[in-house]
Formats: sequence, structure tokens, C-alpha cells
Amino acid sequence: MTTTPLRIAMIGTGFMGRMHSHAWRTAPRFFDLPRDIELVTLVGRTAAATARAATELGWQEHSTNWRDVIARDDIDVIDICTPGDTHADIAIAALAAGKHVLCEKPLANSLAEAEAMAAAATDSDAVAMCGFSYRRTPALAFARELIREGRLGRIRHVRAQYLQDWLSDPAAPYTWRLDRDRAGSGALGDIGAHSIDTAQWLVGDEIAGVSATLQTFVASRPVMESQQGLGGIAVADAERMPVTVDDAAAFTARFRAGALGVFEATRMATGRRNANRIEINGERGAIAFDFERMNELEFFDATLPNSEQGFRRIQVTDSDHPYAGAWWPVGHGLGYEHLFTHQAVDFVRAVAGEAETEPTFDDALAVQRVLAAVEKSAADDSRFTLVEGSNS
Amino acid sequence: MTTTPLRIAMIGTGFMGRMHSHAWRTAPRFFDLPRDIELVTLVGRTAAATARAATELGWQEHSTNWRDVIARDDIDVIDICTPGDTHADIAIAALAAGKHVLCEKPLANSLAEAEAMAAAATDSDAVAMCGFSYRRTPALAFARELIREGRLGRIRHVRAQYLQDWLSDPAAPYTWRLDRDRAGSGALGDIGAHSIDTAQWLVGDEIAGVSATLQTFVASRPVMESQQGLGGIAVADAERMPVTVDDAAAFTARFRAGALGVFEATRMATGRRNANRIEINGERGAIAFDFERMNELEFFDATLPNSEQGFRRIQVTDSDHPYAGAWWPVGHGLGYEHLFTHQAVDFVRAVAGEAETEPTFDDALAVQRVLAAVEKSAADDSRFTLVEGSNS
Amino acid sequence: MTTTPLRIAMIGTGFMGRMHSHAWRTAPRFFDLPRDIELVTLVGRTAAATARAATELGWQEHSTNWRDVIARDDIDVIDICTPGDTHADIAIAALAAGKHVLCEKPLANSLAEAEAMAAAATDSDAVAMCGFSYRRTPALAFARELIREGRLGRIRHVRAQYLQDWLSDPAAPYTWRLDRDRAGSGALGDIGAHSIDTAQWLVGDEIAGVSATLQTFVASRPVMESQQGLGGIAVADAERMPVTVDDAAAFTARFRAGALGVFEATRMATGRRNANRIEINGERGAIAFDFERMNELEFFDATLPNSEQGFRRIQVTDSDHPYAGAWWPVGHGLGYEHLFTHQAVDFVRAVAGEAETEPTFDDALAVQRVLAAVEKSAADDSRFTLVEGSNS
Amino acid sequence: MTTTPLRIAMIGTGFMGRMHSHAWRTAPRFFDLPRDIELVTLVGRTAAATARAATELGWQEHSTNWRDVIARDDIDVIDICTPGDTHADIAIAALAAGKHVLCEKPLANSLAEAEAMAAAATDSDAVAMCGFSYRRTPALAFARELIREGRLGRIRHVRAQYLQDWLSDPAAPYTWRLDRDRAGSGALGDIGAHSIDTAQWLVGDEIAGVSATLQTFVASRPVMESQQGLGGIAVADAERMPVTVDDAAAFTARFRAGALGVFEATRMATGRRNANRIEINGERGAIAFDFERMNELEFFDATLPNSEQGFRRIQVTDSDHPYAGAWWPVGHGLGYEHLFTHQAVDFVRAVAGEAETEPTFDDALAVQRVLAAVEKSAADDSRFTLVEGSNS
Repeated sequence: MTTTPLRIAMIGTGFMGRMHSHAWRTAPRFFDLPRDIELVTLVGRTAAATARAATELGWQEHSTNWRDVIARDDIDVIDICTPGDTHADIAIAALAAGKHVLCEKPLANSLAEAEAMAAAATDSDAVAMCGFSYRRTPALAFARELIREGRLGRIRHVRAQYLQDWLSDPAAPYTWRLDRDRAGSGALGDIGAHSIDTAQWLVGDEIAGVSATLQTFVASRPVMESQQGLGGIAVADAERMPVTVDDAAAFTARFRAGALGVFEATRMATGRRNANRIEINGERGAIAFDFERMNELEFFDATLPNSEQGFRRIQVTDSDHPYAGAWWPVGHGLGYEHLFTHQAVDFVRAVAGEAETEPTFDDALAVQRVLAAVEKSAADDSRFTLVEGSNS
Repeated sequence: MTTTPLRIAMIGTGFMGRMHSHAWRTAPRFFDLPRDIELVTLVGRTAAATARAATELGWQEHSTNWRDVIARDDIDVIDICTPGDTHADIAIAALAAGKHVLCEKPLANSLAEAEAMAAAATDSDAVAMCGFSYRRTPALAFARELIREGRLGRIRHVRAQYLQDWLSDPAAPYTWRLDRDRAGSGALGDIGAHSIDTAQWLVGDEIAGVSATLQTFVASRPVMESQQGLGGIAVADAERMPVTVDDAAAFTARFRAGALGVFEATRMATGRRNANRIEINGERGAIAFDFERMNELEFFDATLPNSEQGFRRIQVTDSDHPYAGAWWPVGHGLGYEHLFTHQAVDFVRAVAGEAETEPTFDDALAVQRVLAAVEKSAADDSRFTLVEGSNS
Repeated sequence: MTTTPLRIAMIGTGFMGRMHSHAWRTAPRFFDLPRDIELVTLVGRTAAATARAATELGWQEHSTNWRDVIARDDIDVIDICTPGDTHADIAIAALAAGKHVLCEKPLANSLAEAEAMAAAATDSDAVAMCGFSYRRTPALAFARELIREGRLGRIRHVRAQYLQDWLSDPAAPYTWRLDRDRAGSGALGDIGAHSIDTAQWLVGDEIAGVSATLQTFVASRPVMESQQGLGGIAVADAERMPVTVDDAAAFTARFRAGALGVFEATRMATGRRNANRIEINGERGAIAFDFERMNELEFFDATLPNSEQGFRRIQVTDSDHPYAGAWWPVGHGLGYEHLFTHQAVDFVRAVAGEAETEPTFDDALAVQRVLAAVEKSAADDSRFTLVEGSNS
Repeated sequence: MTTTPLRIAMIGTGFMGRMHSHAWRTAPRFFDLPRDIELVTLVGRTAAATARAATELGWQEHSTNWRDVIARDDIDVIDICTPGDTHADIAIAALAAGKHVLCEKPLANSLAEAEAMAAAATDSDAVAMCGFSYRRTPALAFARELIREGRLGRIRHVRAQYLQDWLSDPAAPYTWRLDRDRAGSGALGDIGAHSIDTAQWLVGDEIAGVSATLQTFVASRPVMESQQGLGGIAVADAERMPVTVDDAAAFTARFRAGALGVFEATRMATGRRNANRIEINGERGAIAFDFERMNELEFFDATLPNSEQGFRRIQVTDSDHPYAGAWWPVGHGLGYEHLFTHQAVDFVRAVAGEAETEPTFDDALAVQRVLAAVEKSAADDSRFTLVEGSNS
């Protein structure tokens, strides 16, 4: 690889920043990339913490001013790992400066911002990719291949659940993810957005309409002392902060081509740690997936003789499965971070013109539109039909 | 057991008739019942076929006139195994004649009929029980014990799916179950009704409101020659018959106490033979069940130390599990028909005053009200929120 | 069915007697049998208890003298449900009298007895069948079809475990099953015999040699007061009785055609209620089964494209699966007792000349020979190779 | 981390070399280590290939002479990733030179070599660790904690299987792993060794004796053109090479304290990609594990009320599970390579005196002794008991 290296600046030093750093570092060790990668500079809010993070995560330099970084000629890629309320400003500026952009999901906290970002991407020649990383799960990428080849036939059912339980305990402390201004929405945007993107991408169709319910089970949460001033939110002397986002979201949906969708996202499904699940039933077959067993895909082939039909547990770790050939021998599973390494690989290949950019900002905007429709539907209580005789 | 035997007449000779016959025959062999049981007479539509069925299924006599049978003094119980459109007439007449009634689900094909039946039951001293047989699954009965004891704490999520696939093939032939007049509704009433009853019974709460979608994927079905005249439907020379019921139903729901429900019923979920599933998440724990593995209950106890938490696969075949002690040693599973045997046991005990009647006709009416609300909601397309920018 | 009925006498009133009674009663209700069945007489040890059992289990008459019953002209079938130490006497006498015989497993408590029984069966024109009931599990019968059709190719591995845990607690009380004189052996003969028969039957080959270990973990067990005199064992004033059989058995085996077998049977595998498991790997495919999920067979087809291979969970409840078509719709599982109903069906068909008798007494003798070889191997401690340097 | 860095030299450039490189690189990014790490030099067989590998895997220098590298003063650690026949020479020389040694498993290809290595380790003050990496699986490390705390009580059963299928196809090509001189043994040493180490480590006891069978199902394999000269084996013009190791190994075992072990290792279990499984049953509980689902541990607690007992699927990804806290949020699984990263962490901590060295060379020698006993047992066919009457 004696190429001009792709020089990267990353904005954001939190959990996702750590993950992306690992991905940029690891991708070239296991994949044959068209460009070398250089982890140039890390951008954070405060100088000392950012300096420390840059060392820990392996970046050459650090900065507290993302506008300065975008202005640099020697930076090729802006990798945005900040909360959603800052995405639009950074991404639009970066694209305007001709930088390639990798932006964490959700694309933005509002539909208007997302539209502006998608427009900026359309106007630019640069790569603009949104970080719906679950697309890079080998099992889901393989599911998509099966669906594209027609192995499921006409799609009728999409059943997508993203179930977590880290807020199940009412005593779990407050976080910025419970603040509407910072986070945009709750379970809906944080994890439901993944389900929507995965579903639309797998099916190859968009959701046309929804009927939705959002619910907040725990109205306020205790603030822990160490959290005073968390993420820029003024929590002052408050002992509790109100939860201004949804704890759970559920909606039925119709896809344009007629498939029926049932979606649920929650952070209060006691017992489900990270059950990002999807099942799709078509006329000729079905697939089922649960991220808690991310190396497996269940595939049902309805064209086999009746007595031999059954969901087949495929370990998606074969050399001819998507991404898997670069790693370990068959049966030796991958972990969560591999999604981000694969994303880095796909991004570099897109920059080099070797692969399509996907998901594009337009794909992410399509998710945002569904999120907006869900919020709109849920806000209108009249769409709820009361059960007659029920004295509630 | 030297008691006056309980003398039973059964109306209906189809699949459910066969099942109930087996149950009445088998219950006294494995359970210590307060009354002996006599399978007196079987009622069908045509004399010859009914005579043949009576021999096969073990009934002493047979008849083609249910009114005559109800008029007999020597009959104690009317067991109704006919399609839903006949339930009201028979049940109300039987109760008026002082007979105990066991009526297959759904209680009726319309809310008005169901209300009349529930009123008749209230006016009567006899036992009037509706055949929501899944309540008699040991695993679900045990789940209910756990919930009643507070082991799940405050309930937040109910996730109920009843997935079958026998209509998945568009070439699957027409049946009376696809005719609105006979069957009332499609997947909704046939199997969704089970989910609704199970959910309301397990949670101990009723659904207050719903937002629903019904869908018919295959508009008409071929009629097989042997089917001409099936179940009283005039199919004449038709080669295809229109499907006038739903293939699939999906709805979100709110329980009175605030739990969020997500329900789905379909007969086109390719690969799912009889996946009657329910998961309930509460503040202190969760349960998950799938009838395809009917002898197992998964239980999550959130009060255990964090590192030891996990869904626990309980084989509900222990002598101290509901119903299970009457059967085989632990680990030797039960099958579908045991539900009906348990139902027969519970019915006889209710008649003898040894047990509460449940589910009552009122319980079944509560299900019917939800079904009606679902149909009403689904009929009003305005409750659907279109996704903006989606050009469908 | 207007045939001369097959008139049955059953010897033994315990758990297996109850099971067989249910099977004889139920078989003609669900299967189209060539002969009617009459439950004529039940034979037990004491008159009062046998009379009570006859009523409960549905037999017309009762007796305490099996020789008298065998001498009757109007009895066609002797069904032997007593402990193993009585099988040889009864079966040989019954065959000599021209009766058809169904004998519970194991065939006998010693190889010599088993050989005499097999010889008697060979000399007789009657049906002599041994009750290895697991062969009648639809999933296993279907597995055998797949193997016979060559779907697994040349067989290399047989991995059979029969794991129970009802003796895991050292305080579990003494029973006749722990007495070598009555029971013959412990886990080996009680449940290991099932694994051996299932393996030899599925593979279609016999075990040529073994290397075995037997182990008794709990040397004596408490006798409960109610047990004084249990099963004819003089327990006198003893508070504890010695365990004279194995708690667990393990052996490696070579089949004649070269497959490698690994067998384990135990009643002390904490957590495993009734895990009767077998996995068979061949050159072209594999099957895996666990009786705790008796309605499922896992099938791996190595001839599919590599990326699509996986163990397929087949619900063996389809109308074209063995036995299953007589019962419920697909996906509605069967229970343990169905094995015995299927056995009754196969027995009646064999008597009518409509089906082969299987397993024959010769098949059961082949199992007995393996049991004998296992005991012989385990008794010779010299076959154990000590680990060098291990100071035990 | 401003410490004197630990300077590492790695010998071996194959699959394990790639894995260890990733581990050394990644460990300090996610764990707080007492010493920095420097990947100094990589040692291979040919200069050009080694230079290329050094660049790919991230080493500063490269060499083809491991003796020279061991002689360097500025190297602290020798990491041995070569085939087993070279381990003894390298490790003994490295320890003599005062280097810390991490040696891949199996420790050696013969018991004599292993003993010499263990003696060298005893004579040295350096850390000498053997790479039984599965000990670093969080689920197994957590299982060990449970066992050490007495949660399983007295151990009775150990059931360990390591099942792969990459040699299942007789047309699969020859490799050095099938050559006794290079590989030492086949499935036994390659994967069975892992099971033995895991079992002895989990139980905290050693195997006292074994009774074993080894089997080679496919006697020779085709050599692919590209393989001429593979790994130093002279394959000349041969089109096929004989397989001189076992395809499968099976043995029963007794642990010193009386537990009964059943072990099986094979590379021909069609359908099992990498099923490294272990189940341990004790008087108070049980654990079950399968590496194909490496993030899960099944735990059975027999001290719970009977009706609530069941195997509990624990996702071992919590912050209070071993190793897991350094990685992703709960429910986001780890992959195969994390074992090696954890091993690197434990090694560095052992060098810094912050942790015990484990597994030591003595632990690995204990495994080697069992391997030797298995081979000795399997070589003596007289220990096999023929089944009487079986005409094989």
C-alpha cells in the first residue's frame, strides 16, 4: 500500500470516538485497502481531556476547534462522532470544504437539519456516509444478498424489535440521552432508527405510513453528583431531572409495496440487553436475526420439500460470507466492533471509487422522515381507538 | 368415583370435536375428578356422518338437532364446538335450559352476540366457560402464578405474536375460515383472539385502546373440487373465492394501568408453524413463551445479582407446576391436546363448585371488545400517518 | 372396523401400565387400525390394588395370576409392563402359548435370559416386540428415513447422551431401581439402553466393541418410612440401603462399519431433566435430537452451498412426517405418551401382517449384548491408563 | 502510562502471529496496563516474506534468526507462535536468556520436551505462560468464578467436546496439521488439548486416568499444486499424502476427586464449525458453554425452588464480568480475537507482578501428560471389549 494516505480528523471523544479510532486502526491490518489511513487529529471540547484522549486512542494531534480542523488542507475525512444536535453544522461545513464525511447516526435531531445535510451531500462530490453500522453485520449483509436474489420472494412481514433494558430500573441515573434537546428523541431515535434503516435496506423498500405510540414510563431520574454539568446540560442543584424523551416506541407500518411492518424500540425490556432483532417473511422464505447472536442468521427456505423445511442456523463466518473472509476461521465469531471496522473499510473503498457509498445521507434522511412521522402520529391521541365498555 | 355422572352432549364433529372428545375421555384417567363423565350424545349436521363420528369419537348416541338435545332432562353439559356464527344461538338456549356450557372461542362473531351471551351467563346459575385453551398450558399457568406473586413487578411491555404460515402459499385452497360470514374475521379472531385473552389474563389488566392495521395479502383463493359446498358456503361453480377476512392483523395497545402492548397475528409468516408467543417485561422481571416449545417457560429475575441474570429455561413439567403433576416424570413433555384435557378438568371442578369458572363469558366478551376496537381502528385509514416525502 | 377384536392382557400396574393403558385406549381413536382392541384383563400382585387399578385404567377384568391369564384361549396379546427380572419367565410362557407379546425394555436383566427370550421368539409365529418406545418419536423416525435415504452419507460419529438428574440430590430416597437384583443395572440399563437401541437402529449398524466406565457417586440412600417393603425388597429396619447399581455410565464404542460412538447415561447430570440426546455426523450431513424438545429435529445438509449450510430446526409435526399426520395441525406438538400410542399402532399392524415387527427380540438382544460388554469392560480396571506423574 | 515499555519479539508469521500482533496492538487501547508495549521485531523463515509480514502486522523490525533475537539485550518478551515441534528449543533458550515467554499451545509435541520446558520455567524468574487462550473467554472465566465460589458444589460430570468439520470432506486438501512429525497429533493435540486444559482449570482438579480411542477416517488427502513444499514438508511429486494423525479422539476420564469425564475432539463432525463445548454438573448446580455462542454462559442453580430451576442464559458482557468491562455496553458481544487481547493483558500484568501467571508451563505439562496417556491408551487395542455375538 504505497498510496497517498487518507488523512482523518475525528470529532467526538466519547464511546463512539473510541470505537471509530479502533476501526480506523484495525481496518488496514485485516483488509486490503486502496488507501493507507492516517489518524491525524482528534477534536474535543476541552484541551486537556482531548489531549489525553488523543494519546489513548492513537491520534497524532488534537484540537478543540472543529472549524479550524475543517479548514485544513491536509485533512481528507471528517468523522463525526458527536451527539446528534451538532451533526448538521459540522457535516455541512465539512462538505462545503470538500471533505469526505462519515457521520454517526441519527443523521440529525430534526427533519429540517437532515434535509439540509442531504442537500449538501447531493451538492458535493465527496463521499457522505451515515453510520448505520448494523448494515455491516455479516449476517445482515448476507440476509440482504439472499433477499436481493429473490430467495424470500415477495415480502409480506417485517418484524423489527430493538430491545434493551438499561433504563428498566427507575433508579438508573439521568443521562443526556434522556434530554430531548440533546438527543432528539429517546429509544425511537437512538435504537429504533437502526431498526428502520435495517428494515428499509433489507427489504429494498421504504415505509409509506405509520401508526405509532410513544411512552415514557419513568418521568424523572436522579442526577448523580458526578454528573453535575453533564454534556453541557445545566443540571444545577437539581436532584432529579425530567425525562423529556420516550422510553419506548411502537408502531405498525406499511411499506410502499405492501409489506406489513411491526416495530418496537425500548430501553426498558427487562432481560433484553441488546436484542436488535429483525424477522422478514416472504412468499418463498424468511430470515430471522438477533444481534445478541450476531454471528448467526436464521434462514427458512419454503421451496424445500415440506417435511425438510425449518429455520436454518447459519453461522455467518465463512470465507464466502460478507466481510467474514478477512477474519478468523469459520465458527470463530466476530464482535460488535467489527461493524465499525467494516464501515471504515467500506468508507475508504467508497472514497477510492471502488464501492458505492451506502448508506448515503439520502438513505439516512429516509429514516429521519419515518422518525418524524412516528412522532407526529404518536402526538395525535385521536388515532387511538378506545375499547368499548372499557372504563378507563 | 361413585358420583352421579356428568352427562355431556357435544355439538360439532370437526377438529375441535375430536379434540374435546379425547379430553373428556382422558381427563378422568389422570385426574381425580369430583364427578364421573359420560359422553352421551354427539350432534352434527347430517345423520350418517354424525353416526360415524359418534362411533369414532366414543359417544353413545348421536343427533342432528341440537334443540332437541338441549331439551333433554338427562343432559348436564352442552359442549359447543361449531363455527363462531352458531355460538350465540346454541349457548343462550342451553343456558336458558339450565345446562352448563363450554363454548369454543371466539365467543361469537360479533360484539352484539357476545354481549347477549355474557348477559345470559350472568342470568344463569350454570357454569358458562369459554374455550381459551391456551390458559391451560402449564407454562403459561405457571407464568401467571409468577406474575400474581409480583415476581415481574409493575408490567411495562406486552409483546404478543401468533404466527402461522399455512396460508403463505397463494395456491393454498379456499376454506370457510376465509369467509367473513362464517368465521367473523381472519387471523385476528382465529388466533389473535388467543393472544388478547392470554395477555389480559396474564397481566391481570384490560386493554384500554388500540391502533390497528389489518391486511389481506391474497385476495382470492382456488376452490378445490372436493370443497364444493364446503361448510354450507355456496361456492357453486366458482373456481376461485374471494377472501373476505384479514390474512394478518397488527396493533399497538395501551393497557389501563399503562403497559404498552404490541400484538401481531398472521397466517402468512413463512416458517412459523404455530408460534403463539408472548413476552412480558416488568420492573422486576420478565417471562417469555413460545407454544412451539410449549413445555418451556423463560423467566428473567431482575432481582438477582447483575452478573447472574439471564433468561432461565424452566421445563414446566415438575410435579409442583400447574397440571403437570398428573402426568409423566419431569422432562417428559406434554402435547397440544393436554390443554383440552386440563380444560375438561377445570370445567368439571367448576361445575362441582371446587374451582372458579375461568375464563367466564365476561372474560371472553372483554376479548371480543378488543377485537371490535381493532376492526374499527383498522377501518379508519385516516389514523395512518403518511411518511413525508414518501411518494407512495 | 368390524373385525374380530384383538384381546389384550396387561401384566404390571405401575407407571408403564398406566402409559400402556392410555395407549391401547387412544390408538384406535386417531389411527385407522386393522383390528379393534379390547382391554380385557389387568394382572397385578395383590387383588385389591389390582382391582382398583383395573377400574382406573379401564380394564374389564383383573387377576393376580399371570400364568392363568396366559392359559386363557380368549387372550391374544400379553403386554408385559413389570420390572426386568420377571420378563423372561412371562414372555417365554406367553410365546409358548401362542400369544403375541409386547415386552417393556430392557428385554431382561441378564444376557442369558435375553438369549432365551430371543430364541423363544424365533421359534414362535407370534409377534414379539420389545418396547424401545423412543423409536416411535416422529422426529427420530424421520431422522431414520433421512439416514436410510443416504442424506447423511457414510456415518462417522454417533454422540448419544441420556442425561437425567433425579438422583442428583444425595438425600433423594432409595428405590428398587437402585437394587441390582431387581433393576439389573442403573443408569446404564434404565436409560443407556435406550441410547444404544436408538443409535443402532438409526445408524443401521451394530456396536462391535466398547471401552467403558461405570460410576456410583452416592453409595447409599435413605429409606423413607412409606417405602418399607418396597417392590418386594426386604428393607427391614434399615434406615439406609446400599446402592448396588451405577449412577452413571460412559463408554466409547466402535460400530462395525467404523463409526466412532461416544455414549453417556446418568441420573445425576444436575439440570438435565430428561435429555435423551443423539447426534450423528456423516460425510454428507448430520442430525441432532434432544427429547426435551421432542417435536424438533435438527438436520444439517452438507450438500447445500457452503454459505447456506446450517442446522435446520424441523418441526416434525407435518402431515407427511412419520405418525404426525394422525394428530394435530402442524406446529401443535405431541407429548411423551404419543410414543406409546404409536407403539400400540405398530404392534397391531404387525399382528395383522401389515407391518414389520420392530424392534424384535433379536434387536433387543443386540442391545443386551452391548450392555453386557459395557459391564465387563467397566469391571476390568486394568483397561484404564493412568496419567503419568499424576500422583493419585 | 509513562513506563519503560515492554519490548516484544514474536516468532512465527502465520495465523497465530497475526492474532497475537492484533492483541499486542489492541490491549493498551482498552485496558489500563502497568507497562507500555512495543512491537519490536518479527521473526520468520524467509527474509522477504517476513519483511512483508512485519509491515502488515505492525512490527518495527524483522529477522530470520530467532537465536540472534533472543541474544538481544533490548528484548523483554519472546512470543512463540510457531508449530509445536519448535517450541521447546525456542522457549528453553529464551528462558535461559532471561526473557519472559508466551508460548502457543500445545506446549510441545512430546512429553519429554514439555517436561524440559516446565523445568526451564521452574528454574527461571521470568514469566512463562502457555497460550491456552480459551481461559480468557469471559464466559469461561466467569464459570470458573462460580465454581470456585462453590456454586456447583461437588463436581460429578465433565462433558467436553471440541467439534469442528473442516476435514469432513474427504477431498479437503492435505496440510501440515495432518503430519505427525510437524503437528504432534491431530484433533487430539490441536483442539482436544484445549478441552483438557479448560476442564482441569475449571474443575480445579487433574485427570487421573483415561480410556481412549483415536480414529483416522480418511487415510490420505490430495496435495494441491500450490502446496508443494508446504511448511517444510517434502511433498515432492506426490499427488496424495498419508494422514499420520488422528481425525478424531474420544476418551472417558476420571478426575482425582472422582468426577467422571467424557471428552471428544474431532475435525469431522459435519455441521459443527467450532463447537468448543463444556458442561459441568455438580451437586448444587451446573454450567454449560459452547464457543459458537461465546458471549453466553448457561448456569443452572439447583438451590433455587424446584419449580423455578432452569438453565439460565447469562450474557457475559456486563461490566462486572471478567474482562467485559473494558469493552462495549452490555449485550454487545466480543469475538474470537478478544481472547488473545485478554491474554496479552494478563501476560503484561504477570510480568509487572500484578497478577499470577496462568496457565504456567506446569499447567500445560499437565495437559501434555493427559495427551500422552490418551495416545498410550488408544494404542493398546486390548483394552477394547468386544461385544459378544457380534460377528465383526
